[in-house]
Amino acid sequence: MISVVILGSGNVATHLFKAFNKADGIVINQWYSRNINAIASYKNDTEVIDDLSLIKDADAYILAVSDDAISELSSQLPFENRLVMHTSGSVNIYDIDKKHKRGVFYPLQTLSKDADIDFAQVPICVETIDKKCYPIIKDLAVAIGSPTKRVNSDQRRVLHLAAVFVNNFTNQLYRIGHEVTESEGAEFDLLKPLIMETAKKVQDLSPFKAQTGPAMRNDKKTIRKHLKLLENQHHKDIYELLTTSIQHTHGRKKL
Amino acid sequence: MISVVILGSGNVATHLFKAFNKADGIVINQWYSRNINAIASYKNDTEVIDDLSLIKDADAYILAVSDDAISELSSQLPFENRLVMHTSGSVNIYDIDKKHKRGVFYPLQTLSKDADIDFAQVPICVETIDKKCYPIIKDLAVAIGSPTKRVNSDQRRVLHLAAVFVNNFTNQLYRIGHEVTESEGAEFDLLKPLIMETAKKVQDLSPFKAQTGPAMRNDKKTIRKHLKLLENQHHKDIYELLTTSIQHTHGRKKL
Repeated sequence: MISVVILGSGNVATHLFKAFNKADGIVINQWYSRNINAIASYKNDTEVIDDLSLIKDADAYILAVSDDAISELSSQLPFENRLVMHTSGSVNIYDIDKKHKRGVFYPLQTLSKDADIDFAQVPICVETIDKKCYPIIKDLAVAIGSPTKRVNSDQRRVLHLAAVFVNNFTNQLYRIGHEVTESEGAEFDLLKPLIMETAKKVQDLSPFKAQTGPAMRNDKKTIRKHLKLLENQHHKDIYELLTTSIQHTHGRKKL
Repeated sequence: MISVVILGSGNVATHLFKAFNKADGIVINQWYSRNINAIASYKNDTEVIDDLSLIKDADAYILAVSDDAISELSSQLPFENRLVMHTSGSVNIYDIDKKHKRGVFYPLQTLSKDADIDFAQVPICVETIDKKCYPIIKDLAVAIGSPTKRVNSDQRRVLHLAAVFVNNFTNQLYRIGHEVTESEGAEFDLLKPLIMETAKKVQDLSPFKAQTGPAMRNDKKTIRKHLKLLENQHHKDIYELLTTSIQHTHGRKKL
């Protein structure tokens, strides 16, 4: 049985609480937030606290707080030499106070507030300084059904960066698709199967091999038509830059 | 029973052939390609021809050929006043020779050569000049299990344009994610669940509401870190432009 204390009250903290709470092999000793109201509704499930001096012994402490708060909160913890992990994709493991055994438990997934999460679809990127800490972090991930991968700091940083491309930036392309279709009263819903299929395709095929379309074919006529259709200069800029990017990747001539 | 003749030998033609061939209520009278070798392997399933003078009567003729070939091929058809449709997202319905009853049967989906297609996930955008042609086109789509939507030319054009954003451009963002992760020997596979989840999220939530991440939060520290990490100037440009685009959409301050 692994005992944990969760610190923080955001999406990651809440989803980890729920997953740990129903996992065999994990016991949540406490849940800390400086804003106790945010977690008070869980007081029947675990001990909720807002005072660090009350913090109990545990095998692992999980700092699921904002990037900027990790360093200071780790210093304020009134103990040392225990396993303390943060959950961030971009914060250095050395930002955790060196009095602790330091680790990272980075869930590489978009965790929405209200949606239920299937942790089988949440790879946990694990980083440790002391190798001996690895098994306990791995066991935590396994207990909630998540695949794990040991990564170093550089790898975690580029995974976080790549996640911005495939998640936030992709979502913005969906948004532009929405704006463009609605400009003529067409339905964005018609694009939803294509959005799913585009994501599915790269589960088995590399994005390089999956590419199609006017940029890939260097179909100048269609590209010209599209640029003419786009009224928003910003959308035009994105169209041109991504078209050039595809042509660059695939060795086609420039626009 | 609706009788059809398919013209063309590319992905769209082949997938439509297979779908029509197994659909109740549709009989394929012939399959034409100027390059008969491309379709010769189907000669046990239907009559394959490469000579337009041999073309038979049918309720509908489907020009699943490249955009540039539609106009000329439609003129060469040795009959008139029958229903002739193209399958393109961007070609004008009036590019079909006016001697025919003209229509568009545009499957809004990415149809890969080798992958099996579930036509339930392929919305057919239907356009006609004469309203009387609509029911037969709709029946064809229904017979292969596809949802249909009547659209006008402007709507079809913006749907095709939006498809480039949510499919080709999104796929290029996946590609950049691949390059970025591999630059440090991290595994692109770790991003695949995130890619699926990002696509799933907008099936129920608008892309506007689904947005998260450093650009959305105006988290300048993370944005600076990411720009510093990106070695490829092209990737930097895309990062900056899409970050600005998200901030523009959500009324955040500029970079």
